[in-house]
Amino acid sequence: MAAPVYNLPRSSVEHLVRQAVYQRLGRPLPKLAMAPNPLVVNVSARHCHLTQEAVDALFGKGHPLTVHKWLYQEGQFAAKETLTLIGPRSRVISNLRILGPCRSLNQVELAYTDGIALGFELPLRLSGNIKGTLGCMLMGPAGFFEMAEGVIRALRHVHMSPEDASFYGVKAGGEMRLKIGGPCGVMLDKMLVRIDKSFKLEVHIDTDEGNACNLQPETPCELLL
Amino acid sequence: MAAPVYNLPRSSVEHLVRQAVYQRLGRPLPKLAMAPNPLVVNVSARHCHLTQEAVDALFGKGHPLTVHKWLYQEGQFAAKETLTLIGPRSRVISNLRILGPCRSLNQVELAYTDGIALGFELPLRLSGNIKGTLGCMLMGPAGFFEMAEGVIRALRHVHMSPEDASFYGVKAGGEMRLKIGGPCGVMLDKMLVRIDKSFKLEVHIDTDEGNACNLQPETPCELLL
Repeated sequence: MAAPVYNLPRSSVEHLVRQAVYQRLGRPLPKLAMAPNPLVVNVSARHCHLTQEAVDALFGKGHPLTVHKWLYQEGQFAAKETLTLIGPRSRVISNLRILGPCRSLNQVELAYTDGIALGFELPLRLSGNIKGTLGCMLMGPAGFFEMAEGVIRALRHVHMSPEDASFYGVKAGGEMRLKIGGPCGVMLDKMLVRIDKSFKLEVHIDTDEGNACNLQPETPCELLL
Repeated sequence: MAAPVYNLPRSSVEHLVRQAVYQRLGRPLPKLAMAPNPLVVNVSARHCHLTQEAVDALFGKGHPLTVHKWLYQEGQFAAKETLTLIGPRSRVISNLRILGPCRSLNQVELAYTDGIALGFELPLRLSGNIKGTLGCMLMGPAGFFEMAEGVIRALRHVHMSPEDASFYGVKAGGEMRLKIGGPCGVMLDKMLVRIDKSFKLEVHIDTDEGNACNLQPETPCELLL
């Protein structure tokens, strides 16, 4: 019999256990344990968001993106489909993961390390704000799709609900810091706050940031003003 | 006529200008400008240190390493010679730079991003402390050299003279933090202090750390306790 697959992040379990232990001991909850929701920090490997029009060109007319793995944010998934990206100097990144569902805009999110491999400087942008950025050529099994713009390094950010925002005392568009512990810990400054009723509390950092501090599931993380 | 090449890092020039400006204005120097030496922060790309025995095996008996570029620390250089590294899963890193002069120990320093590409977990080690780490095969134009151990991610560290150590109030083996500014600034914790009379004040971080914060020559950096 296969072991059941649990999709609850380690930090969610820790948060629940911490709350239960303090309550059981009859001791007051420390500030961290009083947070309405557990803090989940995930590393976003390079990926792209595509319009249905781009998916049509790359995988065939009407091709639906298929779920490879559900992500922590409701309804978002890593698709089985991957692409080849051809940069402005004809250098290539293979197996670029597509995140679904389709959006109204095409955007490729890379780490600076990828930018160096591709031979050009990535602009640091808020996701969706791609005006004036460089584009690239995408190649799929059914054809090519040229993106005129949209290759960026995404600004590090934290997703949260209005309830989380009120607990931390922050507003949409504000900035927080993320303290990451462990033997090569870092503090990430200037993390953009994004608030929506549908958002679960989650920090997205990229592979450069994750590798700089060797972020692991058990690495302690703390959200600070 | 070719422009002359100046090897003075930007932060050294800034340090001198800052001191001169405050003195000219007759104003007291802020703490930062009072430091005996400018703070230089350099990104170490992946590289290796080799014994003469290894260089002999890879480049031919008695082959001397040749200078490609002098580094900031006195007498240290990036060699013209590069190698191919073959990891334990037969994955390859090409053009691995050798740093000279030769040492009494063979050591390869990679970033975690490289470890992921090679398919194995790098241990985080103080340079020189390689006991029990994984090795690799090195390939040069004249042959192979097998390293039984020594592939690491080096602990982030700061080189300084006893004079710098006394200004910052730190001891060898202690830890400091490095605050790196800019639009995706970070604070690097647990930076090991290394003191020697011959050392110039310099922080070495790796490419993951440098890319996490997009460190550029003009990025403001500050050494903190």
